[in-house]
Amino acid sequence: MSERLAIYAEALFETLNGKTGHGVIRYGSREVVAVVDSTQAGRTASEVVPYCAQPVPIVATVAEAAALGADRLLIGVAPDGGKLSDAWRAALLDALERGMDAEAGLHSVLTDDPVLVAAAAKAGRRLVDLRVGPPDLDTPVGPYSRDASVRVVHSVGSDCAIGKMTVTLELDRAARARGERSVFVATGQTGIAISGWGIAVDHVISDYIAGAAERLVGEGAERGDLLFVEGQGSLYHPGYSGVTLGLLHGSAPDVLLLCHLAGQEAIHSYESVRLPALPEIVRCYEAACRPVRPATVAAIALNTRPLARDEDARAAISAAEAETGLVVDDPVRFGSDRLLDAVLAAFSD
Amino acid sequence: MSERLAIYAEALFETLNGKTGHGVIRYGSREVVAVVDSTQAGRTASEVVPYCAQPVPIVATVAEAAALGADRLLIGVAPDGGKLSDAWRAALLDALERGMDAEAGLHSVLTDDPVLVAAAAKAGRRLVDLRVGPPDLDTPVGPYSRDASVRVVHSVGSDCAIGKMTVTLELDRAARARGERSVFVATGQTGIAISGWGIAVDHVISDYIAGAAERLVGEGAERGDLLFVEGQGSLYHPGYSGVTLGLLHGSAPDVLLLCHLAGQEAIHSYESVRLPALPEIVRCYEAACRPVRPATVAAIALNTRPLARDEDARAAISAAEAETGLVVDDPVRFGSDRLLDAVLAAFSD
Repeated sequence: MSERLAIYAEALFETLNGKTGHGVIRYGSREVVAVVDSTQAGRTASEVVPYCAQPVPIVATVAEAAALGADRLLIGVAPDGGKLSDAWRAALLDALERGMDAEAGLHSVLTDDPVLVAAAAKAGRRLVDLRVGPPDLDTPVGPYSRDASVRVVHSVGSDCAIGKMTVTLELDRAARARGERSVFVATGQTGIAISGWGIAVDHVISDYIAGAAERLVGEGAERGDLLFVEGQGSLYHPGYSGVTLGLLHGSAPDVLLLCHLAGQEAIHSYESVRLPALPEIVRCYEAACRPVRPATVAAIALNTRPLARDEDARAAISAAEAETGLVVDDPVRFGSDRLLDAVLAAFSD
Repeated sequence: MSERLAIYAEALFETLNGKTGHGVIRYGSREVVAVVDSTQAGRTASEVVPYCAQPVPIVATVAEAAALGADRLLIGVAPDGGKLSDAWRAALLDALERGMDAEAGLHSVLTDDPVLVAAAAKAGRRLVDLRVGPPDLDTPVGPYSRDASVRVVHSVGSDCAIGKMTVTLELDRAARARGERSVFVATGQTGIAISGWGIAVDHVISDYIAGAAERLVGEGAERGDLLFVEGQGSLYHPGYSGVTLGLLHGSAPDVLLLCHLAGQEAIHSYESVRLPALPEIVRCYEAACRPVRPATVAAIALNTRPLARDEDARAAISAAEAETGLVVDDPVRFGSDRLLDAVLAAFSD
């Protein structure tokens, strides 16, 4: 993909819902020439969200992004429910009329929208739906169908939007730096926007979640032999737990990496759903794997973003290690080496 | 629905895959005038499958079914993966050309098939897709959003195709006979074919499983205050566990009814996946509910079909009661009263 992207995140770039744009800026191989968010115009992406790590200019309008050379507008937000809003749809039409492609990873499918289809045809540009999977999915063959030499690591989490994809990308990158034939296996829209392949398992017909996950592992195994499969949702999430379990059973991992946001005690947006202590979360995921293919949690990636000071972050990591007896670290803040050591050691046990 | 159905189950009526037809014959309110299965032609449905309980004639061809007055052909089989085979598609075309409607509950959508659409238009007949859900699904509001006076019972199982729908229908029927405002809540194609409403949660976009389940409970609550929500799949099933957990968390039951096939030790078609003992299965389902809304297993419906003699069935029931400390019975063989007593008692605890 050699496009020059503009990322549309009007009024949302600074929020968690802007995570698609953040991920594409931080990890994507495509050039990002602008972010569109009039509430932050004049600043840069990394000023507003340090995680982005790139000083991409933020502009107020699609027209300004086009003037900076953007030839594709990506909807860079991931709202609950995944619907295309009228405002975002208008932005995509604006982009098409200015000669840009339109790309999105929402549940609303761009190529199902006659107005967008007509506008794209008129402009001679493309509509790209990151979340639409292949048409020939099916149920899985089964948990022991793959080559025994393939090692599968799966990132699971206590909640959504706490950094599972980031942890997965960081560990894949660190493993490749060590000479491993490691592969990041994208299971969601942002991961696909970053890596250029994958299946958004939360958009497939629900009977085929596990089949889609099994197929992803098969495709990953053609690219390498250490697969880091991005997790989705949480077994504790009232809305997305089905996707989580289907992905867990379909990818049939050997090793789990548990992701948790430091200090979080309830599911975001569902405050009545309380999270248990970390050792219980570890037990829950291991128990969920057991019937299909046993797997152990090798380490915990603790997102310490809520803690401003490094010493508080280190204290939270130490406390989680004491509580669980597992290696715990924040790969974004302190590097991935200790987590990767623990993951690789789990395969030699 | 006042159609006169013919059920197409060529070469499969006698098998478990014929369960859609069996359920519609046993429980449906529509008249079934014929089954099409040339390998059983000349016999009746209840001779071949006693569960059907109706002596519907089995014929060899769609033409013979039409001659018996059928005005709609229903694909009466539920294959793994849910694809429409070429042979079944040909049967539907044959039916349309003979002036019948075509109905199916597969993942393959009839109205997406241009040849079927053209044939239906030419014949002036309907294509009916039982498995296609409403277009405006979304993520759920949350587990405590419903009226506290609504009681939700959910049938869960150790595997697919072991009688969860049957148990759910039997208990609903028994509850209505006692004067309860009881409702059968269909979550799959066969249940919808029987009751005329519902959502096939295994066909929705996987992000919306729980939202679909929550919506079904809301719609059920407009029809009564004791809801028997049909379960799907199994938490132990490598292919369908995601659907199971999404439905469990979305319907957020108060009480569970566990369904199990006597003597079964591994998942059908995935023999490497072994089932644990019944008390562990009970614990697994209760643990899965706990984060979102706690629920207890009130009783176990044991499908004793593999046991020919009633005394062996009674012994298996007694053994399961001793093993679990719960009320166990086979509602098809011995009636639903003891199970219903246990379910209703769980609400007064």
